[in-house]
Amino acid sequence: MVLGDYKIEVAFSPDLFGACDLNNAIVVVIDVLRATSAICTALESGVERVIPVSTLEEALEYQKKGFLVGAERNGEQIPGFDFGNSPYSYKNPELKGKTVVLTTTNGTKAINMAKDADMVVAGAFTNISVLSKWLEEQDKNIVFLCSGWKGRFNLEDSLFAGAVIDRISGNYKYRELSDSALASKYLFHTADADPYKFLRNSSHRKRMHKLNLKKDVKYCLTLDQSTVIPILKGNEMVSLESYYESITS
Amino acid sequence: MVLGDYKIEVAFSPDLFGACDLNNAIVVVIDVLRATSAICTALESGVERVIPVSTLEEALEYQKKGFLVGAERNGEQIPGFDFGNSPYSYKNPELKGKTVVLTTTNGTKAINMAKDADMVVAGAFTNISVLSKWLEEQDKNIVFLCSGWKGRFNLEDSLFAGAVIDRISGNYKYRELSDSALASKYLFHTADADPYKFLRNSSHRKRMHKLNLKKDVKYCLTLDQSTVIPILKGNEMVSLESYYESITS
Repeated sequence: MVLGDYKIEVAFSPDLFGACDLNNAIVVVIDVLRATSAICTALESGVERVIPVSTLEEALEYQKKGFLVGAERNGEQIPGFDFGNSPYSYKNPELKGKTVVLTTTNGTKAINMAKDADMVVAGAFTNISVLSKWLEEQDKNIVFLCSGWKGRFNLEDSLFAGAVIDRISGNYKYRELSDSALASKYLFHTADADPYKFLRNSSHRKRMHKLNLKKDVKYCLTLDQSTVIPILKGNEMVSLESYYESITS
Repeated sequence: MVLGDYKIEVAFSPDLFGACDLNNAIVVVIDVLRATSAICTALESGVERVIPVSTLEEALEYQKKGFLVGAERNGEQIPGFDFGNSPYSYKNPELKGKTVVLTTTNGTKAINMAKDADMVVAGAFTNISVLSKWLEEQDKNIVFLCSGWKGRFNLEDSLFAGAVIDRISGNYKYRELSDSALASKYLFHTADADPYKFLRNSSHRKRMHKLNLKKDVKYCLTLDQSTVIPILKGNEMVSLESYYESITS
């Protein structure tokens, strides 16, 4: 590989992440509905750090220690915890400066799965412009990790990967797009005219409509409500701004 | 589930097959470039059965017992075996009535992975019409299993799944298309105008061009050269015709 010769690939599900090449790579974890959208919202609202944990057991441990904890399974908040994973729960000025622990069905597991990569960031339609611009400024390969739904492919996460790839892949430095990256881009082109219509039949959107979460779906599919890029620092998602401050101070 | 209420899903890689629901399902194994195309060609040419094996060790065991054996890894024939997985190797009238053992990088592993399903058939562009028509006549769910490339998503297998789904999903009995089934159908719509152009950048096609297999690629992307549907009977792929004969005689 020469400088300026990078590749882009997409893991359509955590089960495909093992086959990805993490050498000199930024991993973009995607769980549009709703974990990565919620994390963007939380940091945008002034939450200092979100600690993503994979299991309810870990979440309970943090709760016992006095942490605020969000816990969701199958689209619903687990009783006894402070929040689910609705972004609206995190739009709260009282959370400014706080730490929030979060466990969700798919997204937080995906973040933890990626933690050995050079850099792990969270992507969502809500931060798509700032994220795409930043990615293009880095000299790294990019692996998009779609959280999917319990091991399955889902439309909204791959559509988001395609939307970012569409924005950045014109840059000559991305010389190699994997088949999954190409397919994501083509999917985005199909959907571009009307992403809502495109996602109308998606399984997770149907699941969320059943749970009366239409407002959340709309929020999560609205572009650029956040200028925050959440990035993993140790076991915490923090804003890229505070990450840079911490490594330069 | 009521009669006439079936679902279609696509595993974009063998690593995603575990999450598929095999209840009352036909599994369509796809390895367009080139294992399932070669199996169709072999049965069309009069080969009586193709025994797909996962490892070179098994292939060697069969060879020692006197079987004709095809063996391919990374696009190339393994020296010492009778064939690779070029469909042209199997277009040979001398093979009529013979048994051929086959091991390939991805496809034969995928077939063996599916063997506990009710029915396992092989799909390729070369048998797309006869396969699509037959699938629609069955009262079963359908799971498309894309062989991919070493655990990765590939364009040509998912494109084929989408092409079949496009043909059959108008049938009212398929009430549920998974997100992966929808994405495949959208991909096919993107490619429909010019599948060759669509696949121009695909990783496996590039790999095969490097190996000077352009003629094979062209063959494997040409529709309806075969009227055979290969189906798994025990550990052998036979033609659907001889399968039906064996279970009714």
